[in-house]
Amino acid sequence: MPEEFKLRLRNISPKKHICVSQQFTSEYLFELFALAKEMEENSHLYSEVLKNKIICLLFYEPSTRTRLSFESAANRLGAKCLVSENASQFSSAIKGEIIEDTIEMVNHYADFVVVRHVEDDVAYKILNSTKIPYINAGTGKTQHPTQSLLDVYTIYQNFQRLDNLKICLCGDLLRGRTVDSLVYLLSKFKNNKFYFVSPENSRIKSDLKDHLHEWQKINNLDFVESDNLINVLPDIDILYITRIQKERFENPEEYELAKGKFILNLQNVSLMKNESIILHPLPRVDEIAKEVDNDPRAKYFQQARNGVYIRMALLKILNDNTDL
Amino acid sequence: MPEEFKLRLRNISPKKHICVSQQFTSEYLFELFALAKEMEENSHLYSEVLKNKIICLLFYEPSTRTRLSFESAANRLGAKCLVSENASQFSSAIKGEIIEDTIEMVNHYADFVVVRHVEDDVAYKILNSTKIPYINAGTGKTQHPTQSLLDVYTIYQNFQRLDNLKICLCGDLLRGRTVDSLVYLLSKFKNNKFYFVSPENSRIKSDLKDHLHEWQKINNLDFVESDNLINVLPDIDILYITRIQKERFENPEEYELAKGKFILNLQNVSLMKNESIILHPLPRVDEIAKEVDNDPRAKYFQQARNGVYIRMALLKILNDNTDL
Amino acid sequence: MPEEFKLRLRNISPKKHICVSQQFTSEYLFELFALAKEMEENSHLYSEVLKNKIICLLFYEPSTRTRLSFESAANRLGAKCLVSENASQFSSAIKGEIIEDTIEMVNHYADFVVVRHVEDDVAYKILNSTKIPYINAGTGKTQHPTQSLLDVYTIYQNFQRLDNLKICLCGDLLRGRTVDSLVYLLSKFKNNKFYFVSPENSRIKSDLKDHLHEWQKINNLDFVESDNLINVLPDIDILYITRIQKERFENPEEYELAKGKFILNLQNVSLMKNESIILHPLPRVDEIAKEVDNDPRAKYFQQARNGVYIRMALLKILNDNTDL
Repeated sequence: MPEEFKLRLRNISPKKHICVSQQFTSEYLFELFALAKEMEENSHLYSEVLKNKIICLLFYEPSTRTRLSFESAANRLGAKCLVSENASQFSSAIKGEIIEDTIEMVNHYADFVVVRHVEDDVAYKILNSTKIPYINAGTGKTQHPTQSLLDVYTIYQNFQRLDNLKICLCGDLLRGRTVDSLVYLLSKFKNNKFYFVSPENSRIKSDLKDHLHEWQKINNLDFVESDNLINVLPDIDILYITRIQKERFENPEEYELAKGKFILNLQNVSLMKNESIILHPLPRVDEIAKEVDNDPRAKYFQQARNGVYIRMALLKILNDNTDL
Repeated sequence: MPEEFKLRLRNISPKKHICVSQQFTSEYLFELFALAKEMEENSHLYSEVLKNKIICLLFYEPSTRTRLSFESAANRLGAKCLVSENASQFSSAIKGEIIEDTIEMVNHYADFVVVRHVEDDVAYKILNSTKIPYINAGTGKTQHPTQSLLDVYTIYQNFQRLDNLKICLCGDLLRGRTVDSLVYLLSKFKNNKFYFVSPENSRIKSDLKDHLHEWQKINNLDFVESDNLINVLPDIDILYITRIQKERFENPEEYELAKGKFILNLQNVSLMKNESIILHPLPRVDEIAKEVDNDPRAKYFQQARNGVYIRMALLKILNDNTDL
Repeated sequence: MPEEFKLRLRNISPKKHICVSQQFTSEYLFELFALAKEMEENSHLYSEVLKNKIICLLFYEPSTRTRLSFESAANRLGAKCLVSENASQFSSAIKGEIIEDTIEMVNHYADFVVVRHVEDDVAYKILNSTKIPYINAGTGKTQHPTQSLLDVYTIYQNFQRLDNLKICLCGDLLRGRTVDSLVYLLSKFKNNKFYFVSPENSRIKSDLKDHLHEWQKINNLDFVESDNLINVLPDIDILYITRIQKERFENPEEYELAKGKFILNLQNVSLMKNESIILHPLPRVDEIAKEVDNDPRAKYFQQARNGVYIRMALLKILNDNTDL
């Protein structure tokens, strides 16, 4: 995608469309967090906020958490959902329809459109054809902005701040998208330090690295890359661990070697600070042992829970701004 | 299907079930159009018309537009939807259940049943087992009657008449179903002329041709078959273009030859009359160049939009007549 | 599954979770039946019982009847549904997520969770992670407890009793699950006699046989195994026939031999008592000829109908007990 398109996506108001995590300002975040908290505490007050509104969810990639939490959020606000659980096989996509035409159609069927898509740059195409608020629910290997919102909300709940944090991001940093969205967002705040821990062949993308270099001075941020998780555990406030995607490795032995280094069990959790937290976008496979679930630092199920309230708040803000 | 079964389908009241487009009378159409227009203008007045009603949608073939527009229509009227997005693989059909048994079940679960099915003659089987209003959302290669309703509604919006029209139907006329439903319907009106433009091996079905010969005198209709789109463009009021289905051609070179003749771009659109219109049931692949979308004659997205209001009106009429 | 786990499942209150059919007491059944009847007669009084409640349906195996009847029941009570029609392929399961993690998530998204799963012992895993009422909609080859509820309800409607009955269970008794759930339930009542009719290689499971031996004296029950359907037809009150699953047979000739013996047509129905009834969990393939549908003894479509009211009643009872 040309640089000017990326810039355009970053400059769209998150009260209009949700495309990339760079859109979110501190002001927006704190308004969203306050609303999410209020909605969790007094959900019954919001059960008709989206009455008679229709939300279309088009998922071109498998999903459970993201889709169901959007649907749960929509239902709690009184909206109705039009769902394509597997749009790549059972929709017109299989007949060769381009996404722009699909969106032209959805403009007339729904009041909001939520899309997960396999293409990295699809957000720009969608934005060019949508006349209703669009929410990016995951684009290829590039972004998953609503995930980053619930990630930072969970961080904020635990630290009451989004600056002066030491965050380790661990896993397949080359092929995932949640890490990118989270780092783009946290780099907006002062004095954060990022530890990128991954197998040698799964380092962060060059785009993200360029971004970090650009913001290094502006926000006094720091970052290191490593393939050793154990060494960083004692230092960090937040461990954000993701799946190592076996299918991406060409050499199975290399996968086995890599994987072994990034498995979190109670033994290595004990190296972490008491007040630190463990996050995971889920689903996990075996990178966090089940025994860790009961450790007070494990916050990944709280993250999943937060997803519903964050998405409720996000939908309400979009709805409040549709007529502006 | 034996002739007497076909006759039975054609004679069913469209206020009871929607099976084939021959069911629709002028009187029905104009009542439907008026209601669709009213619903578009005052949709908030109709948000509880189907309150506590349940609509079951069974799709045995992929669909986006038809299914989602039915769901959108149902939701706008306050109904709930039971959906099988891919009934051929994830329903009892895979265990060998016949459609009649599926319908016997749906009788008890829902108040309306909408079915898209791969079989040409399935409407008759469904009609024999349904106790609730049935809507045909596409049967094999034969019919797609609700598509023809939104097609003629769009024509009516633009010409304020359904007679004295020159309509070119272009594409794979042998394997599609939307053209058949539309032509069966328009042949009910006086002085229409049809131009069937297709590759040599994809001419209209013999059933449709027999029908046209039968009605030629009654309604003073006329029709020609051709494989040259350019020649007819200056003459026509309506260009109804459909996909050439690549997978149907045995010889890829023949496909390429055929395809080239039926691609609509701004250059050949300029041959059309100013007041003419371009329709397409969608999805399109490449038979209409994207550049045509902004031409004022392009009405295919308006068609998609009309689908929601036509289906709302259709559901309301069926509902109003369930107790008769 | 260890014996102590099975015992635990059997001892859970059916007002909290629905795991296995052994949970249901006479008292529970008669309360459920009364409520189901009341809901059928006065359904409009119950349209807001589950207002603002969310039901999550996760189907890891194909289903039509069970899923749609749960959705129909939920909608009639005013609840919203989150649906995964094909969770094994389009959910996080495909990324390797374990069911316990999926349920941890659903705890935060919904108020009830309904699961059909391919694993025999999954109910225990789910029960260990759910914080909301769980309903088993089918587990591998072992149980389908809500099916057994609508089965016994249909029996009760026809005989006004659940004891002193002669029941023939016919089909593939080794690989099905509906027969197990029904027999576990009916063996709780006095003086029932079971006739298990199946191909030699598809006899009832050893678990069920052990259970029958255990309860033989307690409730004066009796049972026989046979491969001859015709001989038992004159004796029985209830014929519960199920699919012979062709794909399970190693030798196609053996299948053909087996199958022929268990096809019900009007000729062998005529051997049955006038007041007897024919049940089938559906879908059927060819084990009941269509000509039998109009025989007054055929109650399998009534069964399907009863499923909606039984599931409505079951959801209401669970809901009434969530705060206890």
